[in-house]
Amino acid sequence: MANALIILAAGQGTRMNSDLPKVLHQVGRAPLVAHALAAGRALEPERIIAVTGHGADLVEKAVAQWAPDAQYVRQAEQLGTGHAVAQALPLLEGFDGRVIVLYGDTPFIRPETLDALAASDAAVAVLGFVAADPGRYGRLIAQGPALERIVEYKDASESERAIRLCNSGVIACDAVLLTELVQGLGNDNAAGEYYLTDIVGAARARGLSAEVVTCDEAETLGINTRAELARAEALFQTRQRNDALENGVSMADPDSVYFALDTYLGRDVTVGPNVVFGTGVTVESGASIEAFCHLEGCHISRGATIGPFARLRPGAELAEDVHVGNFVEVKNATLAEGVKVGHLTYLGDAEIGARTNIGAGTITCNYDGVFKHRTVIGEDAFIGSSTMLVAPVTIGARALTGSGSVITKNVPDDALSVARGQQVNKPGLARKLMTMLREEKARRAAVKSEKKG
Amino acid sequence: MANALIILAAGQGTRMNSDLPKVLHQVGRAPLVAHALAAGRALEPERIIAVTGHGADLVEKAVAQWAPDAQYVRQAEQLGTGHAVAQALPLLEGFDGRVIVLYGDTPFIRPETLDALAASDAAVAVLGFVAADPGRYGRLIAQGPALERIVEYKDASESERAIRLCNSGVIACDAVLLTELVQGLGNDNAAGEYYLTDIVGAARARGLSAEVVTCDEAETLGINTRAELARAEALFQTRQRNDALENGVSMADPDSVYFALDTYLGRDVTVGPNVVFGTGVTVESGASIEAFCHLEGCHISRGATIGPFARLRPGAELAEDVHVGNFVEVKNATLAEGVKVGHLTYLGDAEIGARTNIGAGTITCNYDGVFKHRTVIGEDAFIGSSTMLVAPVTIGARALTGSGSVITKNVPDDALSVARGQQVNKPGLARKLMTMLREEKARRAAVKSEKKG
Amino acid sequence: MANALIILAAGQGTRMNSDLPKVLHQVGRAPLVAHALAAGRALEPERIIAVTGHGADLVEKAVAQWAPDAQYVRQAEQLGTGHAVAQALPLLEGFDGRVIVLYGDTPFIRPETLDALAASDAAVAVLGFVAADPGRYGRLIAQGPALERIVEYKDASESERAIRLCNSGVIACDAVLLTELVQGLGNDNAAGEYYLTDIVGAARARGLSAEVVTCDEAETLGINTRAELARAEALFQTRQRNDALENGVSMADPDSVYFALDTYLGRDVTVGPNVVFGTGVTVESGASIEAFCHLEGCHISRGATIGPFARLRPGAELAEDVHVGNFVEVKNATLAEGVKVGHLTYLGDAEIGARTNIGAGTITCNYDGVFKHRTVIGEDAFIGSSTMLVAPVTIGARALTGSGSVITKNVPDDALSVARGQQVNKPGLARKLMTMLREEKARRAAVKSEKKG
Repeated sequence: MANALIILAAGQGTRMNSDLPKVLHQVGRAPLVAHALAAGRALEPERIIAVTGHGADLVEKAVAQWAPDAQYVRQAEQLGTGHAVAQALPLLEGFDGRVIVLYGDTPFIRPETLDALAASDAAVAVLGFVAADPGRYGRLIAQGPALERIVEYKDASESERAIRLCNSGVIACDAVLLTELVQGLGNDNAAGEYYLTDIVGAARARGLSAEVVTCDEAETLGINTRAELARAEALFQTRQRNDALENGVSMADPDSVYFALDTYLGRDVTVGPNVVFGTGVTVESGASIEAFCHLEGCHISRGATIGPFARLRPGAELAEDVHVGNFVEVKNATLAEGVKVGHLTYLGDAEIGARTNIGAGTITCNYDGVFKHRTVIGEDAFIGSSTMLVAPVTIGARALTGSGSVITKNVPDDALSVARGQQVNKPGLARKLMTMLREEKARRAAVKSEKKG
Repeated sequence: MANALIILAAGQGTRMNSDLPKVLHQVGRAPLVAHALAAGRALEPERIIAVTGHGADLVEKAVAQWAPDAQYVRQAEQLGTGHAVAQALPLLEGFDGRVIVLYGDTPFIRPETLDALAASDAAVAVLGFVAADPGRYGRLIAQGPALERIVEYKDASESERAIRLCNSGVIACDAVLLTELVQGLGNDNAAGEYYLTDIVGAARARGLSAEVVTCDEAETLGINTRAELARAEALFQTRQRNDALENGVSMADPDSVYFALDTYLGRDVTVGPNVVFGTGVTVESGASIEAFCHLEGCHISRGATIGPFARLRPGAELAEDVHVGNFVEVKNATLAEGVKVGHLTYLGDAEIGARTNIGAGTITCNYDGVFKHRTVIGEDAFIGSSTMLVAPVTIGARALTGSGSVITKNVPDDALSVARGQQVNKPGLARKLMTMLREEKARRAAVKSEKKG
Repeated sequence: MANALIILAAGQGTRMNSDLPKVLHQVGRAPLVAHALAAGRALEPERIIAVTGHGADLVEKAVAQWAPDAQYVRQAEQLGTGHAVAQALPLLEGFDGRVIVLYGDTPFIRPETLDALAASDAAVAVLGFVAADPGRYGRLIAQGPALERIVEYKDASESERAIRLCNSGVIACDAVLLTELVQGLGNDNAAGEYYLTDIVGAARARGLSAEVVTCDEAETLGINTRAELARAEALFQTRQRNDALENGVSMADPDSVYFALDTYLGRDVTVGPNVVFGTGVTVESGASIEAFCHLEGCHISRGATIGPFARLRPGAELAEDVHVGNFVEVKNATLAEGVKVGHLTYLGDAEIGARTNIGAGTITCNYDGVFKHRTVIGEDAFIGSSTMLVAPVTIGARALTGSGSVITKNVPDDALSVARGQQVNKPGLARKLMTMLREEKARRAAVKSEKKG
């Protein structure tokens, strides 16, 4: 059956003590809402509807990045989950499949769990979990999978409170029925809010079936404070690290390696301590990443060695056996097989041919204050130390540039290009200059002490 | 009532296995004694007297940095806490307020605790704590807050040893009484030392009142080994990290962010993994600090973005929306609003105008071997990559410098300045040179193998 | 008595999910087999025999690095530990001392433990340990140290399974007896393998004595998965960190300092957070290593200060009071007393005289594409910022080089050497150029919007 997703992402998250809307706080370098979307996408939903409110513009922009086909509806006032879903109903018109309601601040729900929930053929399916400490969660009163009703903690009897099967709030329901039930919701309660979970009682009152699908408590973890956010990040990282170890990645200290939501590391990749992966990194088998590297939006091929102290930024494409060494930054640049960039270099908006050696201190001068320009270097070239490549510029195959040259014009294949002043040695002048400076220093010290005295 | 502080800071700390006096070992980038002083300053003491001994010169220098108004007295031999306080008595002459005796190796005592202690109107007030494992601590025999006496562990009866209220050693007493009591102390004990805590018994013997003020055991943690020091550091960091989270700071991995005693981070500041704060850092709301940054003595304004791999040293003043990127060092330099310094740069002793762009590889050549000189750059300037700014030098507003230029003379507003050699391409020469080198290599290899053979 | 070692290092380690042979995975920057060898070397063995199989070439190369005198024998098929030892017997010919059989994937065994094992005068001595959770380990049936027999878990009775003294597999036996016993081993068991531990039963059947020598369970930890490898690394690091603390090293966060197998840090060395030691590092007393440093194969003398963000590579020799600052790489270079290299520098294949100051951005251009060349700098020289030192080149004592100079020829003592273009200021030209660029940008934007419209 066709699926549709409603993601509730309107809350401010007061307890986060932040101007940023809650669902935009990040775990694994991606906003919380992206995690919920990633799980939800596994259902191949025909429609994705995000209900936004606080910081709606920002939230919609973030959602669009992870779900370009999402639609948006705004909840002007936050009057409860039922009210939020009510805003989304117009966008469900003409859809008669299954609707799954998710929360933008609940990042750990697994795709398999949503699959099971969507597959339920009960009129309403509710995601439940057995809580270690049920506290004030709503309790699910069920006979096996058959859900009889949901009891709020404050209304629960002593024996109901002893039940540990709790309500996550995630719900699946057919679109047409959901529309009817949500429209029938009231707000006759202490908070004056419309609660989505009340649709279970309404469905049961009509003699319809309700089912509970259970998942791990950890999947339902919602985030309300920065301390909880930090714990969620730690949990996410632990999972990614363990997965990587199982997949044949070596890490001297897994706890010091930071993964993003979409990091891919192949088998026998070695990662030193203190490595940060931003989004969009893929590393092929057998590549090696030394300590203190910061990688984002880049691709590293088999046999490449990176760092320590390397930074790869979006658009860095490294072919096999490339070496990028310390204090080197690569951005929007393609490095062909066997390129070596060992030290203190900036390569931006560039294309480097196979086996070319880039000397220490080389800089692609890619920005003129208004435009960005490209640098192209051929195969087997040798760029001398501290060469300034003033883009747009092309260096031919097998060309050499002299150390300290500022290259503003193209260099043909096989040519040597030099642009620098002539060295002049002035005998004894160093001694004279230093003597003068030291005498001046002594003079000033004398003046100063005279003033004091 | 007026307060005076006596800080005992004479110990060597044999178990630290160090040449450094114990109270100078650091927690949160500040010596232990600075933590005790920071707590003590909350009492607004009229006099601060530090009793020094081992490494007295170094200790006094450190104390002066955190308490410029402190006075010093030296304890030549370490004959116990009572003896230490006795050395300080001459400096209390003419003072008739309350004296609080603190320990330089006890960094976690809270200002609120000292307030409570100072506020006691008993003749002698002793700071006590309920120990989880009382071990060999002295026990406080009290009826509610009324302190009857202090029993050393070795003298305690079975039932007294069952008491978990222990003596921290921190004491408050009126100056005149303290003087009398300390002068009356004896050293008739196994160690032959003068114990400050014996003044409680002496006061009680005169029919004077004694009171116990209690605090958390964690506050009384003293440090005797490097392992304890490392644990104290961990405890300190945990507190700072939790405070920061509560104050609205986002940290992907709080455990990898290192705070100093005086670090200030505003709301919605984002801090990546592996960031080290030295002393004297303030970061305004909404600024962002990426992974692998090292900051000390600097100020970062709203909207600024720092790192990864940036180092800000004392005197770095960054206005709003400044960007300091990777492998960039800034020292004693003011960067006005919107300045961008993206890559591989050293800015020292400089003043950069608003919106100016500093190209990669730029260096302020601020040191001539004897003197340091300043570089001044105007607004909206564009400093080409690898520009050497030989200070003292001034670059005008809206001026440009060509990549690879060595600027030794001032550049007027709106001017372009270039200082570099002419580029010469020598066709085919690269091929010839490399051929020669490779032939030479082959020749050497042949000679070598001939010798072997 | 003379000792010989047999190290079993033939396994693939399927569960590691790796192309690398198991014993080459690293702990403390050294392959597992190096740890076993390091413990075994304490016995001063006359012969070291490594039994290799999977990845034998790589394993033998690694063993040779840590035990140059080792001999090798290959086990083509992995038919059990008894079979592995059988391969080694020919290399024991003529040796009549004690043979100790160790495992290449068991890195934590202590030298003292092997000493005790080798010292046993029983015919066969077996290393045992009291397991917290004995699980499926073989049990040692012993009366005090007298070992009666080894029972495999599957063959053990209920009461035998209750025994917690387990078999580590490490064995000591006289060479001649070992040869006889191993040659007599059968493979009549479920796996069809030859088990070395069966020699105990065979010895006992001959009426010979067997003894159990016990060690800590932690010493016998074998490694089978990457998660276990990561835990072993963590365990190794914890030991090294605690040892360092006890030896008088200060570390703000020991858990973020990574030691190699052979790291040596003197008393009162200070190490900041996030420091990585590769192999071969020695740091003398009182030196200071700031955060974010990566050190390998280098020597740091008393009073030297390193980092933050410094990388020292093999062959970096730093004399007393040297300072190496941020974004600096030193490789195969000797820095004499008091040399300062503060910022953004690469020193490779160099020799720097005492008290010389190396300006920011300096690079030794040591590689011409084929050969590496040396740079030699005298005492008290002052190398200006961004000086390119095109090796081979010699800079005299007390010489100066101008900022931005490319030095290709030697500079005499006391001389000033400059090699750079003349600065030309072109009034108003910056304004014109930027105006042109901005107009071009506006023109392009207009064209683009026209096309859309």
